[in-house]
Amino acid sequence: MQLKLVIVTCLMAFGLKNQAQPEVPIPTQAQLDWQNAELVAVFHYDLHVFDEKKYNQRENRITPITDYNIFNPKNLDTDQWVKSAKDAGCKIAILTATHETGFALYQSDVNPYCLKAVKWRNGKGDIVKDFVESCRKYGVKPGIYIGIRWNSFYGVYDFMVNGDGKFAENRQKYYNKVCEGMVDELMSRYGDLAIVWFDGGAHGPEKGGPDVLGIFEKYQSNCIFYHNTQRADIRWGGSESGTVPYPCWGTYPFRYSHSTNQEVIYKNNFQLLKEGDPNGKYYMPAMSDAPLRGYNGRHEWFWEPGDEAHIFLIENLVKMYYNSVGHNSTLILGLTPNADGLMPEPDVKRLKEFGNEINRLFTNPIATTSGNGKKIILKLKEKQKVNQLVLLEEIALGERVREFVVEGKTANGWKKLSEGSCIGHKYIARFDEVEVSSFRLMIKKSVAEPVIKEFAIYNSN
Amino acid sequence: MQLKLVIVTCLMAFGLKNQAQPEVPIPTQAQLDWQNAELVAVFHYDLHVFDEKKYNQRENRITPITDYNIFNPKNLDTDQWVKSAKDAGCKIAILTATHETGFALYQSDVNPYCLKAVKWRNGKGDIVKDFVESCRKYGVKPGIYIGIRWNSFYGVYDFMVNGDGKFAENRQKYYNKVCEGMVDELMSRYGDLAIVWFDGGAHGPEKGGPDVLGIFEKYQSNCIFYHNTQRADIRWGGSESGTVPYPCWGTYPFRYSHSTNQEVIYKNNFQLLKEGDPNGKYYMPAMSDAPLRGYNGRHEWFWEPGDEAHIFLIENLVKMYYNSVGHNSTLILGLTPNADGLMPEPDVKRLKEFGNEINRLFTNPIATTSGNGKKIILKLKEKQKVNQLVLLEEIALGERVREFVVEGKTANGWKKLSEGSCIGHKYIARFDEVEVSSFRLMIKKSVAEPVIKEFAIYNSN
Repeated sequence: MQLKLVIVTCLMAFGLKNQAQPEVPIPTQAQLDWQNAELVAVFHYDLHVFDEKKYNQRENRITPITDYNIFNPKNLDTDQWVKSAKDAGCKIAILTATHETGFALYQSDVNPYCLKAVKWRNGKGDIVKDFVESCRKYGVKPGIYIGIRWNSFYGVYDFMVNGDGKFAENRQKYYNKVCEGMVDELMSRYGDLAIVWFDGGAHGPEKGGPDVLGIFEKYQSNCIFYHNTQRADIRWGGSESGTVPYPCWGTYPFRYSHSTNQEVIYKNNFQLLKEGDPNGKYYMPAMSDAPLRGYNGRHEWFWEPGDEAHIFLIENLVKMYYNSVGHNSTLILGLTPNADGLMPEPDVKRLKEFGNEINRLFTNPIATTSGNGKKIILKLKEKQKVNQLVLLEEIALGERVREFVVEGKTANGWKKLSEGSCIGHKYIARFDEVEVSSFRLMIKKSVAEPVIKEFAIYNSN
Repeated sequence: MQLKLVIVTCLMAFGLKNQAQPEVPIPTQAQLDWQNAELVAVFHYDLHVFDEKKYNQRENRITPITDYNIFNPKNLDTDQWVKSAKDAGCKIAILTATHETGFALYQSDVNPYCLKAVKWRNGKGDIVKDFVESCRKYGVKPGIYIGIRWNSFYGVYDFMVNGDGKFAENRQKYYNKVCEGMVDELMSRYGDLAIVWFDGGAHGPEKGGPDVLGIFEKYQSNCIFYHNTQRADIRWGGSESGTVPYPCWGTYPFRYSHSTNQEVIYKNNFQLLKEGDPNGKYYMPAMSDAPLRGYNGRHEWFWEPGDEAHIFLIENLVKMYYNSVGHNSTLILGLTPNADGLMPEPDVKRLKEFGNEINRLFTNPIATTSGNGKKIILKLKEKQKVNQLVLLEEIALGERVREFVVEGKTANGWKKLSEGSCIGHKYIARFDEVEVSSFRLMIKKSVAEPVIKEFAIYNSN
């Protein structure tokens, strides 16, 4: 019902009421909002941030933390966290309510391994609440990340309770109830969310996992569900490089996207996740995630002491932007506050620099237009030097374009500036600076009438 | 050092300073206090009291409780608990700080599955603290029971973390640290304790268990340690019938008493635990435990709805007393408050009746004496009808008597009233009423000079 309403609304808005409805997958409102956000922050925060040791994910998954009272972020300030993400341009910010230790950053009534257990704030702290309130204060949409695939505290490894016999079977049932209970709490207590993200996915009940989808649907009617074996509204882009290849279609042939669950996905280094499938029946755009501290041989989702030298440079981040947002994907930057409870100053500074640079690059187009059909012309009042173009499809109507070329009229006639296949939410192309007086976008192949929401020209120098 | 001090003190007190020191095992002060207590209550209280279902121990051990917020004893009153035990004559009262669910009835900083986790009392409840304070108020010595052998929450079955490989190994290490941490908290926070009781024992570190003995010794210098594979100050009496057979020696051939750990103990239905060994090198008296709700085919350590018909009758309890306290053992009555947080009225009433009956039976001896040596005479001013006698050895000097007979001078000459082997802390004999003017206790065999602390004659009618 909801999908249909969205379609009708969009069709009306774009004056297409009487046209034939194209048979291409279309996004939900939550998926539209997600793609419009373009930049997303995911804050990783867990017990081991406080252990003064290097994070070793493999070990962490099988080694419970002995003293959880190390969790003591004395100067916790989620306003400062969220502002740092907003400064980078993030429109959505996600917090790991739980990650692989199983420790929950809120006041759970179903998982005692939570902020109730610690001395910090006299056992009354609720970082999820603080975080969501900070998001609302800064006009950033909040999302929640839930780790249930790994849980060193309960003894869960790759979805399953470690053990055997009836005991393990009962503990699996119990663990599933804990997970369902946490999802209920997290979906119901903190208002509307932009996304709920299950770390590494969740098994659906058909695979012996918790039954979380119905709970999600009960409380969050306009929210990205990512993901279990029943549903995925977005997909992982196949790497943690902050980029996807080109083309990267927003559609996918399966309803869910577990990288572990289908042989076809393993192939060619997750090629299907990376590229998507233009003929895929499901609207499921790719994310491009990377930790901010991923420079020069490191790749750290979690804060560690002395890791400042591994913050990505501006040039790395800008390149990521072009190869994620500019490839019809969403750039998700992994941010991690320190043991003091604050985003470290070097990270804050870099995020602000990044936000400023993206603003500089994309805020002032030389010219912009929009339109339907196979050919769209954009004329300048006078010729100008340009080196960058941006295309957006009206993805509320689905990804319709399959092949296109953009040409510019130079002193020497029409010259090809860029060509490609997928436009989707956004396509960005850089090219050698050239003096152009007019542009034309020609759609050479499409599955329904092309609807170009924006066709913009820039000079990034 | 402490043992030697106790010996010297006792020897001086009994004027034996210059006699040869007998080579029999002697108790510590804590063991003396324990045996002098004679009657002990152990309060069982755990999550499943609140589940409105029958307690099924086998299932409970492998089935975590889904909703721990069922724990909501609205009218909790530990004063009322302790008073009910005191009314029965208990001088020591023990509380299950944790039992087989793993849920801890206090504010643990190492086990989040505790009263911090629940809504009850806003997560600030501490029943161990309340209980210990109530004990002190009523002049009852507090003891603490700790369940670490079974833990359905953490996935521990019969000492071991269920699972395999490095993950289970790491979780075992973690679990051991949790146990050590809880022992540290429970031994250090609540002042001097009469006993710490590990449910079903604890493995010592040599068997991969937690290293709790050193922690206990650090904080509790005058306290019964019961028990791990390193030490046991008392032993289980081999049944949960509230009785031990006769004789039941207070000495034992092994330093620890796990019923599961030595083939010799399994033999003949735990015969060694029941009888002890008069030649045993270790002072380790037997307990006789039974739940108050053990009548007529039931045997319930935990409160359940509608179980009042299974409270032992007075005659059952009195019989237990004779066959436990009267057999050199300690009677431990299992009491269990209800889901409302109170000892149920029928239990309270029965305990008071029992205390009154024991008082009636033993408070007013017809005559009493004491003395050293192989023959002790007790003359009455005039002949009287009697039917009961009580003997106590001065067990501070060890159990010395091996064979004895008590005779009464009747109109027809000396008549044997009772004979036996072990006296120990207390020997009670009932016999057909007979008119007697004088009594003689003759020690026919002993391993050192007999020291009879009390020789008392009663008529229980």
